Amino acid sequence: MSTVKMVEYENASDEVRAVYDEIMAAKNIDFVPNFWKTIATHPPMLKQIWSEIQVVMADGALNPLVKEMIAVAVSASNGCDYCINSHTAAAINKGMTPEIHGELMAVIGFFNKTNSLANGYQVEPDVKPDVS
Amino acid sequence: MSTVKMVEYENASDEVRAVYDEIMAAKNIDFVPNFWKTIATHPPMLKQIWSEIQVVMADGALNPLVKEMIAVAVSASNGCDYCINSHTAAAINKGMTPEIHGELMAVIGFFNKTNSLANGYQVEPDVKPDVS
Amino acid sequence: MSTVKMVEYENASDEVRAVYDEIMAAKNIDFVPNFWKTIATHPPMLKQIWSEIQVVMADGALNPLVKEMIAVAVSASNGCDYCINSHTAAAINKGMTPEIHGELMAVIGFFNKTNSLANGYQVEPDVKPDVS
Amino acid sequence: MSTVKMVEYENASDEVRAVYDEIMAAKNIDFVPNFWKTIATHPPMLKQIWSEIQVVMADGALNPLVKEMIAVAVSASNGCDYCINSHTAAAINKGMTPEIHGELMAVIGFFNKTNSLANGYQVEPDVKPDVS
Amino acid sequence: MSTVKMVEYENASDEVRAVYDEIMAAKNIDFVPNFWKTIATHPPMLKQIWSEIQVVMADGALNPLVKEMIAVAVSASNGCDYCINSHTAAAINKGMTPEIHGELMAVIGFFNKTNSLANGYQVEPDVKPDVS
Amino acid sequence: MSTVKMVEYENASDEVRAVYDEIMAAKNIDFVPNFWKTIATHPPMLKQIWSEIQVVMADGALNPLVKEMIAVAVSASNGCDYCINSHTAAAINKGMTPEIHGELMAVIGFFNKTNSLANGYQVEPDVKPDVS
Repeated sequence: MSTVKMVEYENASDEVRAVYDEIMAAKNIDFVPNFWKTIATHPPMLKQIWSEIQVVMADGALNPLVKEMIAVAVSASNGCDYCINSHTAAAINKGMTPEIHGELMAVIGFFNKTNSLANGYQVEPDVKPDVS
Repeated sequence: MSTVKMVEYENASDEVRAVYDEIMAAKNIDFVPNFWKTIATHPPMLKQIWSEIQVVMADGALNPLVKEMIAVAVSASNGCDYCINSHTAAAINKGMTPEIHGELMAVIGFFNKTNSLANGYQVEPDVKPDVS
Repeated sequence: MSTVKMVEYENASDEVRAVYDEIMAAKNIDFVPNFWKTIATHPPMLKQIWSEIQVVMADGALNPLVKEMIAVAVSASNGCDYCINSHTAAAINKGMTPEIHGELMAVIGFFNKTNSLANGYQVEPDVKPDVS
Repeated sequence: MSTVKMVEYENASDEVRAVYDEIMAAKNIDFVPNFWKTIATHPPMLKQIWSEIQVVMADGALNPLVKEMIAVAVSASNGCDYCINSHTAAAINKGMTPEIHGELMAVIGFFNKTNSLANGYQVEPDVKPDVS
Repeated sequence: MSTVKMVEYENASDEVRAVYDEIMAAKNIDFVPNFWKTIATHPPMLKQIWSEIQVVMADGALNPLVKEMIAVAVSASNGCDYCINSHTAAAINKGMTPEIHGELMAVIGFFNKTNSLANGYQVEPDVKPDVS
Repeated sequence: MSTVKMVEYENASDEVRAVYDEIMAAKNIDFVPNFWKTIATHPPMLKQIWSEIQVVMADGALNPLVKEMIAVAVSASNGCDYCINSHTAAAINKGMTPEIHGELMAVIGFFNKTNSLANGYQVEPDVKPDVS
């Protein structure tokens, strides 16, 4: 159960409502997802995160679908339920096919395994003089 | 410090050496990375993981660079030192530029933040009826 | 779903019931929280943890509210749902205002981000000769 | 080993150097810590994080020492070596005594234990109708 | 909520159905657990994991009950809800008594505590010259 | 680097020295491991943990070797370097052969993989009415 009472659109201050409007316009949806209604309980964080996500997730050297899949990888490794659901949905919206999803999950699973092995054996780094 | 004595090429059994030869050929390197020399202490695991990685990391619906960046994302989220170093190096070998790396890290950092927030507030899932 | 059948007060042994009575008195509540009814399935652990928590959470160099917020920070970083809910509720009981909660969450989120970045870049420690 | 070549002050662009100057002034130190020289390889992230930290760590409803101890709690739970060292040092600078440090660590350790127990038993949430 | 539509037996391809038949026979159950119906959305992963688990969980130098308890320990440390439930149930089927379960959980909890302390204090390794 | 100055035997108070003597006698070693010299900076924690470990690790329904392997599993999943080293060494002292170690690591790795998959797909629990 949520630890705070979410800020619904109709109860939001003008500054919060302005961010909500931007979120719905940018995502082309007609509701405010729960994550945003939750962090709106602390308006400086709402504004900071909305500002940051627009930069971080912008189309750049990496495209938005790849970025969204990285979000799925982070969320699955951390076991964040809300995040896994929302980023998987967002990745589908950005073009992730079932085939891509299957490969993505296989990669995520495989490296969670090898991570625990590299840690569990305390593998020493290889000499890698050309990594800058 | 490593918890096991790694299996060096010159001391390896024929079956382990055969895997080592395949690894060096596939990666086009002239040494066996420490991860492989470590898990070779348990030959069934060496063979299983070498077999699995070839399938998981093959060029498919996702390309090898994207898969390697996902490995970096998993490893950074888990804090696996060996893995972060080796997958970052591998991603560079597969074409990751400094610009891509910067964006990758920004995405990884951002979603580790929002993961802890979604968990910390126990955000309830949005209704997402069209995610199959 | 819980992995064990919790020990209800009416079915508890005398030794377990004695701990339950102490818990309810100390917390000024009239029910035994699920965490305690769960670990009561292993009475040595129930007694050990009840003994330990009284020392660890006592008012000392740090006050109970700060300690409870640290519990929230640990629980959010680990993604422990039960813990997040119960420690957030406890912190509210100890005086955590919405403003404090907002700042707490912002700090938790921010450092989960920078943790993944420091790990993901494998940042070397600064020389800090005066930390004893 | 660091995965990138850090940006030293003398090689930094004007925009990066401006942030470096602010960091040293704000922290009253005469060197740029490695974390900042590392993320400076991606200047948008350097600027974003420097901007964010000033808000998040400002004296507010929580004081800077409490915020720094929360950073230690997050970092210890995540096992981020660089972060643990730097936040412990920073907390000492902000007044953390050995007594406070000892209590802080006892709290961190205790709740990492109970987190794994609450998860491991899948403890169901208590009814908590008054948590808003 | 699951991120994919699980593959039910009646809709499964011949190759997936063959694995399902093996799973039910090996586990002596008359339904396919959700984990398997989920990863069947990516058949190469279904086959790979089914093949791997038979080797990894086979009776060997460690017996199946010990292996299942290690699975519980990993799952509790990671906070994987599905895994905790399924591995606890499987351990019970393999002979885990309430006494064993209680001791298992006490060990898991204790070392999650000391792990966070060893990390949080950055304890240096002891010299251990005889660990090969 | 350690965040505190460890308490050496010659500088220890009588109460700390008494615990050190018990530790060395119980473990049949002639030095105090770094973990204990570190937490001795907070004597109440030193005494609490030494008291707890004797109960938790005692030969009971589970034998000490199994308990030590569970400690390795927890530590590898958490990526705690000091812990992995010390628990692997302790398990060897208690009879862990290379064959057992190999199987242990294979199990740890495998379930870290399936944990991330169960989380990443948000697999729903199976109905398990007979788990008490």
